[in-house]
Amino acid sequence: MRVLWIYAHPDPRSLDGALRDRGVAVLREHGHEVRESDLYAMNWDPVVRHGNRDHDPRARRHALEGGSPRADICAEHDKVSWADTLVVQFPLWWFGMPAILKGWFDRLSAQGVDNPEARRCGLAGKRAMVVTTLGANAVATGSRGRHGGLDEVLFSLTHGTLFCSGMAVVAPFVVTGSVSLSIEEYADATKRLAERLVSLPATETVPFRGQDGGRHETAGTVHSGDADARR
Amino acid sequence: MRVLWIYAHPDPRSLDGALRDRGVAVLREHGHEVRESDLYAMNWDPVVRHGNRDHDPRARRHALEGGSPRADICAEHDKVSWADTLVVQFPLWWFGMPAILKGWFDRLSAQGVDNPEARRCGLAGKRAMVVTTLGANAVATGSRGRHGGLDEVLFSLTHGTLFCSGMAVVAPFVVTGSVSLSIEEYADATKRLAERLVSLPATETVPFRGQDGGRHETAGTVHSGDADARR
Repeated sequence: MRVLWIYAHPDPRSLDGALRDRGVAVLREHGHEVRESDLYAMNWDPVVRHGNRDHDPRARRHALEGGSPRADICAEHDKVSWADTLVVQFPLWWFGMPAILKGWFDRLSAQGVDNPEARRCGLAGKRAMVVTTLGANAVATGSRGRHGGLDEVLFSLTHGTLFCSGMAVVAPFVVTGSVSLSIEEYADATKRLAERLVSLPATETVPFRGQDGGRHETAGTVHSGDADARR
Repeated sequence: MRVLWIYAHPDPRSLDGALRDRGVAVLREHGHEVRESDLYAMNWDPVVRHGNRDHDPRARRHALEGGSPRADICAEHDKVSWADTLVVQFPLWWFGMPAILKGWFDRLSAQGVDNPEARRCGLAGKRAMVVTTLGANAVATGSRGRHGGLDEVLFSLTHGTLFCSGMAVVAPFVVTGSVSLSIEEYADATKRLAERLVSLPATETVPFRGQDGGRHETAGTVHSGDADARR
């Protein structure tokens, strides 16, 4: 595999940092290539600065991101193009990605708005796995848990962002109870992560319903998947 | 009502900007007080800079946000304390909030991590309505639509962030097909928004299952709602 590991935790000494270090090492030990986007280390700017969605395509082409390609976005697009697999790792904050990571998707798709591939961040055809940690225990995030099932919580990312961009999405790797993990639980988590990473190319994908075609209801005017993927 | 209107669109000339202007005006015409957090105009920083979740409470107390209260966060907490109602308005990007808005919740809760109220952003007991626009049409975001139902897409915000913080959450106000809205559809949208705002205090809330107590499954060690709300 050629893996782009996108990582969004402010503290490298955290549980997330340890899992990232272990995961990247395991992949390399098994002969896979890994590039990283450590968003905090990169001081990634997550804010789409211009929102002019002018309907004149000539104006729109350069309206977002101030008119010219930003070097930081181009560098990320290059990494995405190189990779065949993405690992998206973050601590679950407010039931979602930290802002710095949400803005990675926002900005990569904001630039190149007239290019269907860029609009989907160039993700189509690649494989994706979410790696996340959360303080709640497994029961609280089960299908009858107080937080709602984790599949529901992660739906806008796994289905909306990744699957609707044309990616093959496998089940997320999740560490629950992260605020009080024992040594044994940590060892188990790294072991499970290593197993998931090594078997990633052959892992069955989540059977989301396809965005294009299929048995979706339609109306007189149906927007293209690209136009729908962002507003 | 005392309404805090949180708004996250980079372009005041956008559909979102027009809806915000109209909504704030309607509220004031009806005698309600409104304060605003226009995150782009404020150049809001959405990134939690420190992630040291040390288990020594003395260290943890000042670990996040670099040790001392940041003025921008305190100003937002003051607005939240003042308000009895929050309107959270944004264009749906990648099936979620723009990064600048996600980071409003991230940073408000990161600071004051030893204060249960601050940990939930001080939102408990207040009323919330999400206002969002998206390019997809109503069918694509219906329960059988290609994007998944909008209730599912917004679940991590409406249930996770708002309801689990103790807020009374009403159904979101949604404008679909925003990339090709006609003059008539725009007029209809502003009319619907005005009606929703005027009737907001009496609007029935979404019957999410309660986070504390009730019929949730539990395990031997159940984390408190506060600890669960963020990792």
